[in-house]
Amino acid sequence: MLRRIRLVVEYDGTDFVGWQRQENGPSVQAALEEAVARMTGERVVVAGAGRTDAGVHARGQVAAFSTERAIAVDGFRRGLNALLPPSVAVVAADEAPADFDPRRHARGKRYRYRIWNAESRSPLEARTSWHVRAPLDERAMHEAASRLVGRHDFVAFRAADCDRKNTVRRIARLDVARAGPLVTVDAEADAFLKHMVRIVVGSLYEVGRGARPAGWIGEVLDGRDRTRAGPTAPPQGLTLERVDYELPLPPRK
Amino acid sequence: MLRRIRLVVEYDGTDFVGWQRQENGPSVQAALEEAVARMTGERVVVAGAGRTDAGVHARGQVAAFSTERAIAVDGFRRGLNALLPPSVAVVAADEAPADFDPRRHARGKRYRYRIWNAESRSPLEARTSWHVRAPLDERAMHEAASRLVGRHDFVAFRAADCDRKNTVRRIARLDVARAGPLVTVDAEADAFLKHMVRIVVGSLYEVGRGARPAGWIGEVLDGRDRTRAGPTAPPQGLTLERVDYELPLPPRK
Repeated sequence: MLRRIRLVVEYDGTDFVGWQRQENGPSVQAALEEAVARMTGERVVVAGAGRTDAGVHARGQVAAFSTERAIAVDGFRRGLNALLPPSVAVVAADEAPADFDPRRHARGKRYRYRIWNAESRSPLEARTSWHVRAPLDERAMHEAASRLVGRHDFVAFRAADCDRKNTVRRIARLDVARAGPLVTVDAEADAFLKHMVRIVVGSLYEVGRGARPAGWIGEVLDGRDRTRAGPTAPPQGLTLERVDYELPLPPRK
Repeated sequence: MLRRIRLVVEYDGTDFVGWQRQENGPSVQAALEEAVARMTGERVVVAGAGRTDAGVHARGQVAAFSTERAIAVDGFRRGLNALLPPSVAVVAADEAPADFDPRRHARGKRYRYRIWNAESRSPLEARTSWHVRAPLDERAMHEAASRLVGRHDFVAFRAADCDRKNTVRRIARLDVARAGPLVTVDAEADAFLKHMVRIVVGSLYEVGRGARPAGWIGEVLDGRDRTRAGPTAPPQGLTLERVDYELPLPPRK
């Protein structure tokens, strides 16, 4: 009997070409597919909820594969963790309906973007943050961010090569906060376009450093023109924190 | 005129043999000495407040060197950061009295030890934490820790090859706290013996996992016998957070 196994996956994206299997280097997807193959003897496709870019991290990527093996779900978690490289771990697992599709069935995603805002680099934060020397006004950034909350056409905030026809998304939350030198941007939406979080952060950065007023972000949104938005913030500051489904996620172990 | 420059140094200790210059691999001290030499043309000794072990990190190591160059202290910070490897940064600098000795003049040090206490490994925490699968009772650990606070002979909590004659130290603070899977041990003392924080943490771990009652740690202290204490916790969980002096530290930049 074919079973569908759902996994919650954490990874340090530094040394990967991204989530998706590619010819030009190691991907998280290939690492998982190889670990599953070694455990089950089956060649499987491990489908993911989102194609994180090279260098982007995840604490709560969701993935799924099908298997005929009668291994208990927690046996998969433990066995895969013994076989995966140190940069990837399965932190939870359960059994899902046979047709479970981590991308199509996702109801929402949460990302966090971390900015290290100080004159000096931080070696301990470098792998997981964007170093910005210019002092950022996080309150102006938060004010600008609030303009993006809600249901909008985010065509101005997507990668040039993104070919999705429907560019309307609903941002449920977009909060900017500071704790000392660390500025975090928390983004939650039903779904995101390619590079959307990173272009939103790059645009908030333009407001934060004073190059643009907070209201400018609404003009970018309304203008529907990618060339008017800010730069794409670098990947290492971004982490996919959580993907939500109708079917509640298994607890982290 | 010979000037004495004080530096606050942050580093990711993963790829270093430790603070101290050694034949067998890259040290933080050698990285700083090479950067200073490239900047000033002078061969200098960069003295540190504490000899952190291989794999141990620092957010607030303090170091000092002497120079005849008339470079402004903030010029040293910026110049050294451009020359240092990504794993080391100078986060603050000022000018100190000519006889300033970062080790001898230190009045206190603060370390933090991080334990990732969950069944699954955490790739994003792996470089800076000890992964402990057994559930830890952080309240029992905190109770045990309180027994070590104060002025005591810590000869039972030092490395076998530590040859300091005076083994009396005063622990001002030793707190254990939990935030989800993360258990932190915050230690503050006038000074620490070699491996002292790591052996204290290894002993608190014995209490936390239920192998020993909280009161046992007092017997270890009183017994003055290293072989009765717990194991030495691994280095990557440890960070030297701060070193305090009579002369207030320059602000972090």
